Amino acid sequence: MANAFQELGVVYRNVARADAGAVEKLARFSVSTVHEAMGRLGLMQPYIRPIYPQARFAGTAVTVLLQPGDNWMMHVAAEQIQPGDVVVAACTTENADGFFGDLLATSFKARGCAGLVIDGGVRDVRDLTEMDFPVFSRAIHAKGTIKATLGSVNVPVVCAGALVNPGDVILADIDGVVVVPAARAQQVADAAQAREANEGAKRQRFAAGELGLDMYGMREPLAKAGLRYID
Amino acid sequence: MANAFQELGVVYRNVARADAGAVEKLARFSVSTVHEAMGRLGLMQPYIRPIYPQARFAGTAVTVLLQPGDNWMMHVAAEQIQPGDVVVAACTTENADGFFGDLLATSFKARGCAGLVIDGGVRDVRDLTEMDFPVFSRAIHAKGTIKATLGSVNVPVVCAGALVNPGDVILADIDGVVVVPAARAQQVADAAQAREANEGAKRQRFAAGELGLDMYGMREPLAKAGLRYID
Amino acid sequence: MANAFQELGVVYRNVARADAGAVEKLARFSVSTVHEAMGRLGLMQPYIRPIYPQARFAGTAVTVLLQPGDNWMMHVAAEQIQPGDVVVAACTTENADGFFGDLLATSFKARGCAGLVIDGGVRDVRDLTEMDFPVFSRAIHAKGTIKATLGSVNVPVVCAGALVNPGDVILADIDGVVVVPAARAQQVADAAQAREANEGAKRQRFAAGELGLDMYGMREPLAKAGLRYID
Amino acid sequence: MANAFQELGVVYRNVARADAGAVEKLARFSVSTVHEAMGRLGLMQPYIRPIYPQARFAGTAVTVLLQPGDNWMMHVAAEQIQPGDVVVAACTTENADGFFGDLLATSFKARGCAGLVIDGGVRDVRDLTEMDFPVFSRAIHAKGTIKATLGSVNVPVVCAGALVNPGDVILADIDGVVVVPAARAQQVADAAQAREANEGAKRQRFAAGELGLDMYGMREPLAKAGLRYID
Amino acid sequence: MANAFQELGVVYRNVARADAGAVEKLARFSVSTVHEAMGRLGLMQPYIRPIYPQARFAGTAVTVLLQPGDNWMMHVAAEQIQPGDVVVAACTTENADGFFGDLLATSFKARGCAGLVIDGGVRDVRDLTEMDFPVFSRAIHAKGTIKATLGSVNVPVVCAGALVNPGDVILADIDGVVVVPAARAQQVADAAQAREANEGAKRQRFAAGELGLDMYGMREPLAKAGLRYID
Amino acid sequence: MANAFQELGVVYRNVARADAGAVEKLARFSVSTVHEAMGRLGLMQPYIRPIYPQARFAGTAVTVLLQPGDNWMMHVAAEQIQPGDVVVAACTTENADGFFGDLLATSFKARGCAGLVIDGGVRDVRDLTEMDFPVFSRAIHAKGTIKATLGSVNVPVVCAGALVNPGDVILADIDGVVVVPAARAQQVADAAQAREANEGAKRQRFAAGELGLDMYGMREPLAKAGLRYID
Repeated sequence: MANAFQELGVVYRNVARADAGAVEKLARFSVSTVHEAMGRLGLMQPYIRPIYPQARFAGTAVTVLLQPGDNWMMHVAAEQIQPGDVVVAACTTENADGFFGDLLATSFKARGCAGLVIDGGVRDVRDLTEMDFPVFSRAIHAKGTIKATLGSVNVPVVCAGALVNPGDVILADIDGVVVVPAARAQQVADAAQAREANEGAKRQRFAAGELGLDMYGMREPLAKAGLRYID
Repeated sequence: MANAFQELGVVYRNVARADAGAVEKLARFSVSTVHEAMGRLGLMQPYIRPIYPQARFAGTAVTVLLQPGDNWMMHVAAEQIQPGDVVVAACTTENADGFFGDLLATSFKARGCAGLVIDGGVRDVRDLTEMDFPVFSRAIHAKGTIKATLGSVNVPVVCAGALVNPGDVILADIDGVVVVPAARAQQVADAAQAREANEGAKRQRFAAGELGLDMYGMREPLAKAGLRYID
Repeated sequence: MANAFQELGVVYRNVARADAGAVEKLARFSVSTVHEAMGRLGLMQPYIRPIYPQARFAGTAVTVLLQPGDNWMMHVAAEQIQPGDVVVAACTTENADGFFGDLLATSFKARGCAGLVIDGGVRDVRDLTEMDFPVFSRAIHAKGTIKATLGSVNVPVVCAGALVNPGDVILADIDGVVVVPAARAQQVADAAQAREANEGAKRQRFAAGELGLDMYGMREPLAKAGLRYID
Repeated sequence: MANAFQELGVVYRNVARADAGAVEKLARFSVSTVHEAMGRLGLMQPYIRPIYPQARFAGTAVTVLLQPGDNWMMHVAAEQIQPGDVVVAACTTENADGFFGDLLATSFKARGCAGLVIDGGVRDVRDLTEMDFPVFSRAIHAKGTIKATLGSVNVPVVCAGALVNPGDVILADIDGVVVVPAARAQQVADAAQAREANEGAKRQRFAAGELGLDMYGMREPLAKAGLRYID
Repeated sequence: MANAFQELGVVYRNVARADAGAVEKLARFSVSTVHEAMGRLGLMQPYIRPIYPQARFAGTAVTVLLQPGDNWMMHVAAEQIQPGDVVVAACTTENADGFFGDLLATSFKARGCAGLVIDGGVRDVRDLTEMDFPVFSRAIHAKGTIKATLGSVNVPVVCAGALVNPGDVILADIDGVVVVPAARAQQVADAAQAREANEGAKRQRFAAGELGLDMYGMREPLAKAGLRYID
Repeated sequence: MANAFQELGVVYRNVARADAGAVEKLARFSVSTVHEAMGRLGLMQPYIRPIYPQARFAGTAVTVLLQPGDNWMMHVAAEQIQPGDVVVAACTTENADGFFGDLLATSFKARGCAGLVIDGGVRDVRDLTEMDFPVFSRAIHAKGTIKATLGSVNVPVVCAGALVNPGDVILADIDGVVVVPAARAQQVADAAQAREANEGAKRQRFAAGELGLDMYGMREPLAKAGLRYID
């Protein structure tokens, strides 16, 4: 089982993945909805962007800790991928090299991988787009990497400001990337559903011209807070 | 009428909007052309980008001054929107949270709002794109906000480096966002027209192979400035 | 012939362009492949991005050294363009103004120019996209420029961190921009071909589920480096 | 009198400067205190930093609108400086060139100038430090500028995100730069004094070990908001 | 005891702090040495900088999770500080507001706090420097904050890219900030000592002119890797 | 002799260093003055900053091309240092790791090295400051590096946007870093001297209250350009 802290040169093979049903349920919602359902926590920083606008996925995390300019561990990670997994790759330092391209994507896809989040660069973006292999990255960069130094697979990583433990649910769409701890997946999925059920009705009322001021009963608290209207 | 300087906790209800005819005329031109017609002034900084490439709009500004992580004032602003208005939202500090999403867009649209410029983040970008609600923002970010602290509506704001007074004309397209002071709208529209009239002929001459060096009579001033050609 | 170092106020007219056959051959490969074929050198920094996703080109460099806020030298450069050339524009300081738009694009295209890389801003992006004139830039910015100060044409320039000599081959696609020195063009094209020949077979093996660990014989070196697998 | 909006090629000679007594009073307080006294408004963005840690000043603004790479208007501004003024220099675009050095500082100082805020670069920093001429800038950069294009003097400018009208009070210290509109100078000075009077007593209580939780009566509102303590 | 994942609105009172002897021992070494002793892990990103060059500290972490523009939780954290603790403050989003100033520093110091790391802004830097209260921050910014929204105290936080659990050892000096998990403190301290013992002798040999090429036996591996010397 | 383009895995031993007399003469001037004397060219970008304010040096360049996270080539470079040399280290990609610390500084100093410019990070900054070993870097970062991959020594490098050939004169002070091509060193030194001779008299006239408007005869060209004074 994965240790409580980062270390280099290890691969944890037994990962407690989030419940598949919960992942499937979470996959129905947007990143924004799930992030709200978690109490507004769990987001990666917004510099992580999809390589094409339609990219999106949900899955359980296989984590990778990379060294700068070195993608050796991506190959080690490939073997740990199970169908429905996504790979979350962090680096021991800020680095935008092109750690990932069409060959690795072919390999990952063959293993059933649903997508990649990488706090680094990717390349072969035209091919990845044609393959519809969704990648969320810090940069697009042709810069090649070497295979010389050990990192780790399936240790906890900090990726774009978010803590990711192996097995956590990762949801990614055009609004960003959110991490749901495996143990909370079902609860968050339920909360997301409750939240979304609520939104349809609101949308109709907004479309009909009702104001949030009235729908949410904001006029009194605004007045209490001292808001003044001046003609 | 709006005060000459920023203050918090106020909503100015009577805004002197730019002349509708002038807005309509300005809407025919690109941001680049209008910015040139203003004497190369009035642009927001280029980190403000459209959330989809075809996004564009022209309208009169309802301004909002937000507090970090708080979108309360967006709801207050909704009530002040008149058909043809656009919302320009600044923040008291740098903040990329997702202040705006599909529900607010539905509300704004129902009021006749033509678009949004926000020196902050937006979310529900897939929905906004499907609705064709044009947004120009600093970031795309799922991060949710609260409704707790007063800002203001229809005070002068600095948005992405540009001063915006309520009622000013805001023109936005893939090249950026330009602010035309309400009082200058007609004059700038006329200047834009004059400039554009001029460009069609130039384009044809360029297409036919004529050089700018000759079209603009640059050879002599270049020589005077000391340019040397070396074989 | 071009001097060994930068100077202002000069235009070199005789540029030793890379061999046309080599350029044509290089044009068949991606930027990532060519960069690898050069031994992982020659890339511009990844902040240079295409203005539309399909933008790509290969050609020989006409270089321009701009002054901030001034695009005079772009007109001087136009005259030096030969069919198949691309323009590489650097600036004496960091500046994101819109040095280039649809009129200059029309002029460059009429001269046979295949595209532009600019360590600055561009505008009229909608027109450029419609013209399918590929531009790779630091920014999209409507900000206009003047024509007042001398820079140079066809001197060596540093563009986005890469040294470009006039006549070098410039290859640009969604993964970035790579510079191949004119004298190495044929050799790099051959190396790129060898590399690519190799990739098709690998792709098939990856698609069939073979792991990089086995395909590249990585298991032994990983064990030697001390990688531990933990269940 | 200064116009309500930016224009190029003009120098306004008659500036209504903030009351000298109010400036003197404001000068006794820190930027943080004055910013709070304004209701938490008026700050420039924090990328503006002093060139040496002890730099600080208070004075009335002579504003300058520069063009990129061109410091001509700094010389025009020099003539408009009166004793006790400070110069606030903005630029029509982002530019970090060294617009200001020891010669201009000597000139400004001879006119009675109390300091400079510039949304650009400065140079000769060793000399400026020895002269104790306080400068707050975006960058330190040796890059020289030219004198070729008109900007303006004493028009409203946006400097590092803050609107500055000529005659406003500018206060700068290691915590940043704050702009106090001339018409509000006395009121803000009074509010700052009231706030500061309050702080001495608080400091002593904190030093004696009293907690903010008790001093500010926070325990009840925290409980009401739902804060839970877990042992 | 602290939970395994982030939540809002909670304060954990019982923190298992790292062994005091291990902290004392770690305090003798530099951040660079300790980071190496951990196998080159545990560093915060380098945008966290000391507010004055001599700032340095070692202590056990009280963690704070802030909301943007809101420093309420800093007051809640003050009560949890024990002598020898340091405060590590993260935020739910990127925000550089001035969450901390001289009053809170006085309060923290009275509780025995050894310093602060904050992924946000600080102010009253002149006072903090005079008090010799060491702060490492993302920014210096006078921007004031409110007290309105719950965060948490003593939950795991990600601060500047590093995971910090309450009770971990935090070491900070001019080279950066390193986090040593509480459970590894003694082991890392021993490894740091071993590493440092080794360095004195090396320094003397370098000072005497011996080359790293010879001291570390690099000539053979370099030749093997293919390094060519050309005269 | 150094090749005309970058390659990996080579060390050029015979470098044509700039004339020692010219270096000595250049050392008398500031970076700003020398940059002007070169016609406003040759500067590195301003993100390169001294690790302590008094750091400054002049010397002839030994160049290093590093790989990300790897400082092996710094040891190879040490052997190539001759008294009066400075080391200029670039990297094949953006990377802020701590490639250099007190041990390497001791070694470089023992070889007569006058300082370092590195487009990367440094550490042990307290020691370097005490040793008065001047370093100009992109970052201060404790992050350690490995010794595994070949770069090169004494090939042309692009460092912080400037082309540096081995043997060029590098001048660094608080205003930045300038590169003078070896072949131009004497000419630039003479131009710098002429420029400086000129400045003393100007400084006195400015100090006596004379305006640049008069000293440089700017009133007429300003009027011609259309500058309007408004009372």
